[in-house]
Amino acid sequence: MLSKNTVKFIKSLHQKKFRNQEQKFFVEGEKSVLEVLNADFRISLVVATEAFAEKNTTLISRSNAQLILATQHQLESLGQYQSNDSALAVVDMKANHPFEFPADGFVIALDDVRDPGNLGTIIRIADWYGIKNLVFSAQTADFYNPKVIQSSMGSFTRVSFFYADLDSVFKNWNVPVYGAFLDGKNVHELNHISPGVILMGNESNGISQALEKSVTNKVTIPGFGEAESLNVAIATAILCDNFKRLTLG
Amino acid sequence: MLSKNTVKFIKSLHQKKFRNQEQKFFVEGEKSVLEVLNADFRISLVVATEAFAEKNTTLISRSNAQLILATQHQLESLGQYQSNDSALAVVDMKANHPFEFPADGFVIALDDVRDPGNLGTIIRIADWYGIKNLVFSAQTADFYNPKVIQSSMGSFTRVSFFYADLDSVFKNWNVPVYGAFLDGKNVHELNHISPGVILMGNESNGISQALEKSVTNKVTIPGFGEAESLNVAIATAILCDNFKRLTLG
Repeated sequence: MLSKNTVKFIKSLHQKKFRNQEQKFFVEGEKSVLEVLNADFRISLVVATEAFAEKNTTLISRSNAQLILATQHQLESLGQYQSNDSALAVVDMKANHPFEFPADGFVIALDDVRDPGNLGTIIRIADWYGIKNLVFSAQTADFYNPKVIQSSMGSFTRVSFFYADLDSVFKNWNVPVYGAFLDGKNVHELNHISPGVILMGNESNGISQALEKSVTNKVTIPGFGEAESLNVAIATAILCDNFKRLTLG
Repeated sequence: MLSKNTVKFIKSLHQKKFRNQEQKFFVEGEKSVLEVLNADFRISLVVATEAFAEKNTTLISRSNAQLILATQHQLESLGQYQSNDSALAVVDMKANHPFEFPADGFVIALDDVRDPGNLGTIIRIADWYGIKNLVFSAQTADFYNPKVIQSSMGSFTRVSFFYADLDSVFKNWNVPVYGAFLDGKNVHELNHISPGVILMGNESNGISQALEKSVTNKVTIPGFGEAESLNVAIATAILCDNFKRLTLG
């Protein structure tokens, strides 16, 4: 049975302050809960409808998580989903250490991407393009925000990340930094690209002036109409797609 | 002054039924209201803060719209924005007639894209890539939904569209129909592309079986990681980017 204290505890995890204090976050909905149960995470609690619990008995018991049965209505009151007829899991954060630049790949760096939906979508895109490493400025949305987890569609289980002063990280790595600007080199006209950092800026202000001098290659997505800009997640996807094409071509 | 009846009227426009009955929709926030004031739309009403009204006196009076001053708090209670310190405009829908296939371009067709945020983002992408014409299945989200207008970031003023039975439209046009599937031709490996329809499917189910036989060219965005899929707006952007590159190349 779902106790008042458990309800209070899960609801506190909507806030970053309590997530950090407890070093836990929550995951909701069938797809994401199944992804996290199948991945390498420590899960302390699964709140599930009877139907979900029955269908996934082995998976849940293998996780050693406490199982609490709940109604759909209760699940919906705990999380942020308007509709959740399956489950919600409380999961331990993993320790996230700075990583070295991966020898043969790309890293996505985000300079103050504030919208959790954008961050989650970018994580999903990174996972699609096989980019496993991301680095975020301190003001970027919190990776464990429920909306980030939701919009990553399970891809949050497959990426590494850390928060840092991006300028110092880039200096340390000493690799090309491709920054998305409106006045850079047209990505359709590039012939080859070396592994490096794909740097995307804030939704309203783009890449900060302070970081602009760390950019070694300014690149631009060519526009053919009148829209002033593209959403940052859309722009990330288009750069990843072009860079992967150029790396393999 | 904002009367009770005006408040009730604007709030009714959150619902498709009343939008269709009145043949009006609303636009909110500084950027979108300025875009619509500068575009070729008939605007019946502008509700604005004193600051916005003073800054845009000429533009508002030129529109012949009635101007009602309101507080930020009132504006926020009328629309769907959490924060709106500028304006909201009530705008006449335009008559949307079926168009012929544009001789030298692409058309984006959406088969039951249900999420208004996705539809708005796709309209913004179309505008970025200079694709001015879109056609939607009957079950696709309503173009005039406030969330569509919001996420199109003003691009809704620059596209033509109509709702129709897609199968009949494609037959009538008799042009290539490029459909996004998981088992199509890798878009990175295409050498040339002819103008045609870019067909995108529903968020959960993709392109419907009934419509699959209208697709003349199945295309696929290559994946390199483990994500199962891409969001439909992201996939649209990547296809538009590749198709524009191939058309010009």
